[in-house]
Amino acid sequence: MTDKKAIILVSGGLDSATVLAMAQAEGFDCYTLAFDYGQRTRSELDAAAVVSATMRARAHKVVTLDLGTIGGSALTDDSIEVPDHQDGSEGIPITYVPARNTTFLSIALGWAEVLGAMDIFIGVNAVDYSGYPDCRPEYIAAFEAMANLATKAGVEGNKLCIQTPLMDLSKSQIVERGQALGLDYSVTVSCYQADADGRACGTCDSCVLRAQGFVAAGVADPTRYQE
Amino acid sequence: MTDKKAIILVSGGLDSATVLAMAQAEGFDCYTLAFDYGQRTRSELDAAAVVSATMRARAHKVVTLDLGTIGGSALTDDSIEVPDHQDGSEGIPITYVPARNTTFLSIALGWAEVLGAMDIFIGVNAVDYSGYPDCRPEYIAAFEAMANLATKAGVEGNKLCIQTPLMDLSKSQIVERGQALGLDYSVTVSCYQADADGRACGTCDSCVLRAQGFVAAGVADPTRYQE
Repeated sequence: MTDKKAIILVSGGLDSATVLAMAQAEGFDCYTLAFDYGQRTRSELDAAAVVSATMRARAHKVVTLDLGTIGGSALTDDSIEVPDHQDGSEGIPITYVPARNTTFLSIALGWAEVLGAMDIFIGVNAVDYSGYPDCRPEYIAAFEAMANLATKAGVEGNKLCIQTPLMDLSKSQIVERGQALGLDYSVTVSCYQADADGRACGTCDSCVLRAQGFVAAGVADPTRYQE
Repeated sequence: MTDKKAIILVSGGLDSATVLAMAQAEGFDCYTLAFDYGQRTRSELDAAAVVSATMRARAHKVVTLDLGTIGGSALTDDSIEVPDHQDGSEGIPITYVPARNTTFLSIALGWAEVLGAMDIFIGVNAVDYSGYPDCRPEYIAAFEAMANLATKAGVEGNKLCIQTPLMDLSKSQIVERGQALGLDYSVTVSCYQADADGRACGTCDSCVLRAQGFVAAGVADPTRYQE
């Protein structure tokens, strides 16, 4: 146990589980935060709780937040279908949830203030998700600057850091890091439309990128797929 | 009707109702957004809906968001008492909700993306609430910079603006502006602990500042108080 507290945003997926393992390896006392934001796949939330418990996070909280109210994404709006993965597609995908990372980081910032944590970890990645504006390093730097003006801690001269250890890693490098840290990927769920048992569709962007990552890393893929 | 859309954050209070009137006077097509965030006083939300309907906003949405989960404020945590107003008190008050404005603006940013709105109005004020770090102009500027990196609109070269027309106004100046725009302040509720009928306590910071504002503006105060 240390007194270096960190908030880790966890989705139940491979990336954020790896981030949690990395933060723990750096000696942080980890508090995990997940969001019930009207996402299509509920088994993500179950996976987030299992990941946090398995990895012995100090506390795990789920904040309910009805992003479906504002709509605009295939991940929260049932009237928009999740598309299959297409190689080399450009632009911002329909699975993008408007201002999601900004909203999640903002709530994490609130919990960080309450706990006195100075670090917030998020598993964003500029390599695989270049189509999402809120996954880029310049965005994260701007959020951090804003966070230090928004909070008591910042006003008092402390420095809040938004940590993005996956930013420049490929999916296979992420899998390799997790593997090296002893992470059990069988408890994670990455699929945008997993079923109630956490079995993946195998065809959405997230499934395809995950599967490619395991292959490239030469690591056995524990993902369970729908029939 | 114009094609200049704006999101207006409304709380049901005097300040945000005045902001809505000001945005409409500037010719914006106004979409109002309120939050059910576990606040102590539920009549705020009723007032926000009435204000929006009375002033004919194009749409009014309420996003549910359980900030009580992370705690840390007298406004969302029942175990912390709302203090009476004290003149000249310094520091950040216990009624400060950690990262609230950041969280509210983030969700507004998401809705702005969905609607194609380029303006978000928020009734922050540096004069009366200097104890809240997230009410200062430098904070708002940093949020705006971040917002323009976070979103499709920003990536495509459009400019999102966070509008804070009350920033440098005293409470009496705010009342005068609203009065000049024909705003009916009797439908607004400012109290941190109003009862179910929207009647104010008369002793919290928000009540005292509001009452002083009406007196200074020489405008009759329509606030209904608890017995």
